[in-house]
Amino acid sequence: MPHITLNSDEPGIRGLFRFRPETALPLNELVEVLLRGPSTLSPGERELIAAYVSGLNECKYCCSSHSAYAAVQLPGGMDLVNQVRGDVVSAPVSAKLKALLRVAAAVQQGGLKVTEQDVAAARAEGATDTEIHDTVLIAAAFCMFNRYVDGLATIAPDDPDLYTARAQRIAADGYLALLAQAPRQDA
Amino acid sequence: MPHITLNSDEPGIRGLFRFRPETALPLNELVEVLLRGPSTLSPGERELIAAYVSGLNECKYCCSSHSAYAAVQLPGGMDLVNQVRGDVVSAPVSAKLKALLRVAAAVQQGGLKVTEQDVAAARAEGATDTEIHDTVLIAAAFCMFNRYVDGLATIAPDDPDLYTARAQRIAADGYLALLAQAPRQDA
Repeated sequence: MPHITLNSDEPGIRGLFRFRPETALPLNELVEVLLRGPSTLSPGERELIAAYVSGLNECKYCCSSHSAYAAVQLPGGMDLVNQVRGDVVSAPVSAKLKALLRVAAAVQQGGLKVTEQDVAAARAEGATDTEIHDTVLIAAAFCMFNRYVDGLATIAPDDPDLYTARAQRIAADGYLALLAQAPRQDA
Repeated sequence: MPHITLNSDEPGIRGLFRFRPETALPLNELVEVLLRGPSTLSPGERELIAAYVSGLNECKYCCSSHSAYAAVQLPGGMDLVNQVRGDVVSAPVSAKLKALLRVAAAVQQGGLKVTEQDVAAARAEGATDTEIHDTVLIAAAFCMFNRYVDGLATIAPDDPDLYTARAQRIAADGYLALLAQAPRQDA
């Protein structure tokens, strides 16, 4: 049960967005530009970083959501997401993305944990300054979203189909469009 | 030296805002509404929560900045900020604010670290659902900002006067107004 009385039955961060629309708007503007805006990293790759960090933070709602969002936008689907979440080193993703995921894992531990070596390794695999910047900010942002969702003890549904249904809507319409819509029963 | 090549000499998060204006805008909209928008917690109290969490994360730039922003907006000034950062229990702030700072400290550790008891203690001291919500989100947001600033190894000036000068401008004009202005030399 959530720590505060919400004004809807929507699960996870969606109930918090409904409760406090003033903060929901900039939070959704942030994820829209960071995960779906113009970038040399695909939306699927960026959702994968978000899912990976959310897994490290053990945030069930965010990890289930962004795993589903990554899965519908990556050719490897949920199998690939699970391989990355299980072991980045052996997962079938590019060397650049592996190096960026190592940067993200350091950010999850704390900003001061990111080393020059982590960044140099990403650059050696072809990562640009903007890709490194965006990876750090995505990882940092999910350290916020995960704490927001679990710090208020919101509900995370078990049914994976709910997350997949929402993933298709996110992939088609984006975060801001969904924010503007009336409550629905999917996750 | 920052991990990436920035396009200005501005310190801390300001250099990151200049580098990536697309993400700077929603990030500044978020702090403007969260720390300065309508609330039963004063801007000084909310800046104090931000400074406290930034101190727990050992983020020199954010802690120096938001300590200064809190100090110029609280009657107790920097002495009060330092007392809170040193020992919340003995600091001369309200029992409600102490309880909210305990919630914030739990969020800093991780969303799942916030207990029903933490929240009940805040409510027993008169905290509303919105105050509890905003405290959790402020603490979570600074877990993002701190990781963003230090994960990219931005520069934190030593001179406290630089932070105080900027604090006066933040208190007068707000985050979004400052974002729109040309670079200056203060922190």
